[in-house]
Amino acid sequence: KTLEEILKDKGVITEADLKEASEKNDLAYYKPGRGITVESRDGNYTAHIGGRLQARYTFLDEDLGQDESSFTIRRMKIWLQGNVFSKNLTYKYQQNLNETEDAYAAYKFHDAFALQVGQAKAPQGRQELTSSGSQLFIDRSLANDTFNLGRDIGLSAEGEVMDHLLEYMVGVFNGNGPNQGNPNNQHMLAGRIDVNPLGAFKMDEAGWPEDKPLLNIGAAYAMQTMKADDMGEIDGDNDLLDKALDIDGIDAAAFTAAFGNELEWDVWTANLHAKWLGATFGAEYYKLNAEPAVGSDWDADGYYVQAGYQVIPKTLEVALRYSEIDSTDANAFEKFDKSEVQGAVNYYFAKHNAKLQADYTAVSDDLADSNDDNIFRLQAQVIF
Amino acid sequence: KTLEEILKDKGVITEADLKEASEKNDLAYYKPGRGITVESRDGNYTAHIGGRLQARYTFLDEDLGQDESSFTIRRMKIWLQGNVFSKNLTYKYQQNLNETEDAYAAYKFHDAFALQVGQAKAPQGRQELTSSGSQLFIDRSLANDTFNLGRDIGLSAEGEVMDHLLEYMVGVFNGNGPNQGNPNNQHMLAGRIDVNPLGAFKMDEAGWPEDKPLLNIGAAYAMQTMKADDMGEIDGDNDLLDKALDIDGIDAAAFTAAFGNELEWDVWTANLHAKWLGATFGAEYYKLNAEPAVGSDWDADGYYVQAGYQVIPKTLEVALRYSEIDSTDANAFEKFDKSEVQGAVNYYFAKHNAKLQADYTAVSDDLADSNDDNIFRLQAQVIF
Amino acid sequence: KTLEEILKDKGVITEADLKEASEKNDLAYYKPGRGITVESRDGNYTAHIGGRLQARYTFLDEDLGQDESSFTIRRMKIWLQGNVFSKNLTYKYQQNLNETEDAYAAYKFHDAFALQVGQAKAPQGRQELTSSGSQLFIDRSLANDTFNLGRDIGLSAEGEVMDHLLEYMVGVFNGNGPNQGNPNNQHMLAGRIDVNPLGAFKMDEAGWPEDKPLLNIGAAYAMQTMKADDMGEIDGDNDLLDKALDIDGIDAAAFTAAFGNELEWDVWTANLHAKWLGATFGAEYYKLNAEPAVGSDWDADGYYVQAGYQVIPKTLEVALRYSEIDSTDANAFEKFDKSEVQGAVNYYFAKHNAKLQADYTAVSDDLADSNDDNIFRLQAQVIF
Repeated sequence: KTLEEILKDKGVITEADLKEASEKNDLAYYKPGRGITVESRDGNYTAHIGGRLQARYTFLDEDLGQDESSFTIRRMKIWLQGNVFSKNLTYKYQQNLNETEDAYAAYKFHDAFALQVGQAKAPQGRQELTSSGSQLFIDRSLANDTFNLGRDIGLSAEGEVMDHLLEYMVGVFNGNGPNQGNPNNQHMLAGRIDVNPLGAFKMDEAGWPEDKPLLNIGAAYAMQTMKADDMGEIDGDNDLLDKALDIDGIDAAAFTAAFGNELEWDVWTANLHAKWLGATFGAEYYKLNAEPAVGSDWDADGYYVQAGYQVIPKTLEVALRYSEIDSTDANAFEKFDKSEVQGAVNYYFAKHNAKLQADYTAVSDDLADSNDDNIFRLQAQVIF
Repeated sequence: KTLEEILKDKGVITEADLKEASEKNDLAYYKPGRGITVESRDGNYTAHIGGRLQARYTFLDEDLGQDESSFTIRRMKIWLQGNVFSKNLTYKYQQNLNETEDAYAAYKFHDAFALQVGQAKAPQGRQELTSSGSQLFIDRSLANDTFNLGRDIGLSAEGEVMDHLLEYMVGVFNGNGPNQGNPNNQHMLAGRIDVNPLGAFKMDEAGWPEDKPLLNIGAAYAMQTMKADDMGEIDGDNDLLDKALDIDGIDAAAFTAAFGNELEWDVWTANLHAKWLGATFGAEYYKLNAEPAVGSDWDADGYYVQAGYQVIPKTLEVALRYSEIDSTDANAFEKFDKSEVQGAVNYYFAKHNAKLQADYTAVSDDLADSNDDNIFRLQAQVIF
Repeated sequence: KTLEEILKDKGVITEADLKEASEKNDLAYYKPGRGITVESRDGNYTAHIGGRLQARYTFLDEDLGQDESSFTIRRMKIWLQGNVFSKNLTYKYQQNLNETEDAYAAYKFHDAFALQVGQAKAPQGRQELTSSGSQLFIDRSLANDTFNLGRDIGLSAEGEVMDHLLEYMVGVFNGNGPNQGNPNNQHMLAGRIDVNPLGAFKMDEAGWPEDKPLLNIGAAYAMQTMKADDMGEIDGDNDLLDKALDIDGIDAAAFTAAFGNELEWDVWTANLHAKWLGATFGAEYYKLNAEPAVGSDWDADGYYVQAGYQVIPKTLEVALRYSEIDSTDANAFEKFDKSEVQGAVNYYFAKHNAKLQADYTAVSDDLADSNDDNIFRLQAQVIF
C-alpha cells in the first residue's frame, strides 16, 4: 500500500484527497545494478536506466615486437529497459560506446513460452550468454572468443519448465552479426538447452557462497549457409565469422575464389558448470564444421576449463583457466593451434556492481613463432 | 494538491513539516508513449525519457535476382525531451540507432508564434512530418520517400490560430540534410500551411473512431540552390537530394560536369486528409522542378492515395494505397517511372504504443525490366 | 525527514505503515543544470540524466573565397552521472552527438586524494578544463584550440587542501586522444596545480556579481614521446597533436620521414584569472617544445587575454579577447603566425542554463594571404 492509501484507510484523508495526491505519483527509486527506476503502482509499467563501465589497463609483453601499455574503456554500456502495458511485454535497449547492442521486445505467454523480436544474443555457448559483467576473469576465454555468434537480429522463443529444471532458446536470425541485414534468403538457425538438476542456476561465473550445490549441463547448436553476397554485410562481433571462418574482411570475389558459391557451417557446444560453498567450476567445448562448395570440409574445436574459489566470501576470489583452440585439418591447422593459461584475482566491493579484477595470461601460439605473449590486465567495473 | 499540502490543510502536519517533506520531491511517473517522467510541481520543468522500437521482417520476392529474407531493427529511437524554466521553453533530443536525429530548443511566445533553433524536420509534406510511429502502413509511401526533405539544421517559426483552424511553419535551413554544415551561403527556404476547417487534426494516419469528421488541407513549398562545394556535405536522409536529384554520392567535379556551377530546385506539395468513424483517407501530391545552370530544366512529380478502415475499432484495421512517381522529361523519365500498390492489416494492442502491422507491396518499375518486385513485410512496434 | 517519518513521529501511521509506504520510494526531482534526478534517502545513490544543446549560426566572411552561412549543432551532450554505494564512488558517462566523451569512475579517499580511471579531460590549461557551457565567449580561444590535450584515457589523482587554497591533478594517459588505445609503451604524463588565495574559484568564466574578489593562479605541464606506430591511432580532439604538431592525419612512413623514429614534445601553461563585482578577467600562456629524433627542435607559444563585465548583473554581459599563436622557429613559423580579436555580448535568461551569445572575430592569419577572415556567430544554449 502507498502512504496515500494508508492515510485513506485511517480516515486521515478522503477518497478525493487520495485520488488527487496519487496523480502522476508513481514509484521512483534507485535500484543498484539496474539504475534509475520508475514503476507504476500496479507494476504494469517499469523502466530502468543505468550503465556499466569497465575501465581496463593492459600490459602486453610481446614475444618479439613492441610491448604495449594501454588504458581502454573496454565497455561503457547504457541501457533503458523494462515492461509496458503488462508485466509480460518487456523491452530492452542497450548501447555500448555508442553502438546499438540490444534492441528487442518480448512477450511472455507463459513461463514455458516467450517470443522475442529484435537484436540480442543468439542461442549459443553459456559463456557468451553470461554477461561480460559477471565473468570469473576480466574477459571471456580464447575458445569462446573464437566460436561465439555474438548478437544478431531475428525471432526467437524461450522458456523454462519445472522451476528452471529445463530451459530452452531457439530462433531464426539473419546470421550476419548485429546491425546487419540479410542480403539473401539463407538464415542462421540456433538453439540451446539447459538442464539444472539442482535448481535455477543464474548465469554468473563468480563463486558466491551458495548454500546448496548448483549444477548446469547445457548444449547449443547453430548452422547457416553463407553466400558471396553476404560479404561486406558482416559484423565482426560474430567471432565465428570473423575469427574462426575468417570471412569478415573479404569481398564476394575472394569468397567465391576460396569457397565456391557457398560455405555451409555448423557449430555445437556443450558445457558443465557447478558451484558450491564459494567454489565455482566451468567447462565448455565448441566444435565447428565448415563445408565449402569447393574444396574439402574441415573441422576445428576448442574448450575452456576454469575454476575459482572465494578465499574471503563475497570479497576475495582466486581463479585459474586453461583454454585451447585446435584443428586437425591441414588447411585450418595453423590458425587454430593456440592455447592460453590464465590466473586471476578478483576483489569485490559490492559483488559485480563494484569490483577490481587482475589477471595474467600466458599465450602459446603456433600460428606464428613470435606470438607467445604474456598479458597482464587490471580492470575496474562499476554498475550504476 | 500534493499529499503534503492536503495534510497541511487538515492540520495533520505543520508548515515546517510541509516544507521539509516537499524538498527534492517532485512528481515522478511513467507516462505511456513518453516514458520515464519527472515534473516539477509548478510544471516549469518536465523531462521525459523513452524510446520506440520497430522490429521488422521483410521478404523481398525479386523479379529476377536473389530473393531476400531479412530481419531489421528499422528504428530504435531514444529521446530526452521536455521543458525547462517555463512551460514555453521546450527542447528535444532524439537518437535513432545512435545517430542524432532531433536536437532543438524552442520558445513559444504565443500560440501563434514560436521560434525553434537546431535540428528537426523541415516544413514539407504531411506524411513526412507524421511520425514513422503513426503511419497507416509499415512505412511511408514511394512518393514521400522520393521527394521528402527529412531533417535539417536551421531556424524556424511556427504557430496556430483559431484553435488550429490555421497552422503554419516557415524556416531557413542549411539544406544539406541532418548533421551537415553549409559550405556556402545558399540556404534552403521552406514553409507549410495547414487548414483544419473541422478542428485540430493530429498528424496520425490511423483511423481511430473519431466522434466528428476531421479534415486537413495543406500545402508546402521549399527551394534551394545547390553548388559544387555542397557535394560530399550531403546527408542522404534528405531523399529529395539523394533520390530525386541524385546528388548525394557525387563529387564537385561530377556536379559541375552535370549541372554547371549550380542547380536550383524547388518542390511543392499539397494534401487532403480526412477521418471519420474509423475511416481514414489521405492523398498528397509532390512536384519537383530542377533548373541546372547548364542543360535544360526538368520536372518530376508523384503522389499517393491511401484509405483505411478499422473493422474492429482501435484493434483491427485494413488499408490500401497507390503511389506513383513520374516525369515527362526525357532526361529524367526512366528514374521516376515507378508505382506501388500496397495492402495492409494492422493489429493494435495499445494504439500506436504496441501494434503489429503486415503489408504487401507490388512494385511496377520501368527503370529496369527486372524490378517488378513483390515485398511482404511484418513489423512489431513498441513505444516505451 | 520524509513525510512518512513525520507522520510516524506524530503517531498518525505505525512503524509497519512507515516501512510499507517507504518501499521503492526514493527522492525523485528535476535539478536545473543536472536534469532528472533520483536519490536514495541516505544519499549513497544518486543519478542525474540531462543534456546541453548549443545551436549556432555562423557567418564566415572569407577574405577571398566563398562566404559561408551555416547553422550547426555545435554540441548536443547527454549525460548520466552520479554516485553509487557511497557518496565517494562517483561515475560519469557523457556523449556528444553520439560520440563517447566522458566515461570514468572515481573514488574519493579524502578531499586531498581521489583516484579516477577512464576517459576524461587530462590535466592541462584552465580554459580547456572549463566547460564549453561556462565560457565567456561562444567558444574557447585560438591559443587554447591550438595547444589543448582534450580528453584521454588513463589513471589520475586529484585533490584539494585548505578549502581549495591549493588544488592539484596528476595522471598517466595513453596520450592519443579520446577513444584510442596505445600501440606502444609510451604514455603521456600530465599535471596541474591551482592556487586560489581568496578562496574556491569555480571554473566559470562569466562575470557573475561576486561579493568578494576571486583570484586563481594555475600552471600545467604535460609531456610525451610519439612513435611511428601511434600514427593512425590518434583522435583529433587532442588539438596539440592535430593542429600544433600536425600529426593527426599522417601515416607511419610520413612520420618517420619527417621526425625519424620518435617525436618528443612537452607543453606548459600558466594562467591568472580574477573576478569581482561583475567583472571577469583571464589570461593564459602556452608554450610547446618539440624535439624530433631527426632535425632541429622547435618551439611555439600562444596566449589569450580576455575581460568581461556584466552591465546588467546576471543578464547582460560584454567581453573582449585577444589571442595569438606564434613561433620564432623557421620551420614552424608560418603555421603559428596568427591572431584573433573578439568581442562578445551575452544575454542570460537563467545563467548558463539558458543564454544567447553573439560574438565577432577578426582573424589575422599570415599562414596564407587570403585568410584574414571575419566571423560572426550567434549561439543559443539550453541545459536541461
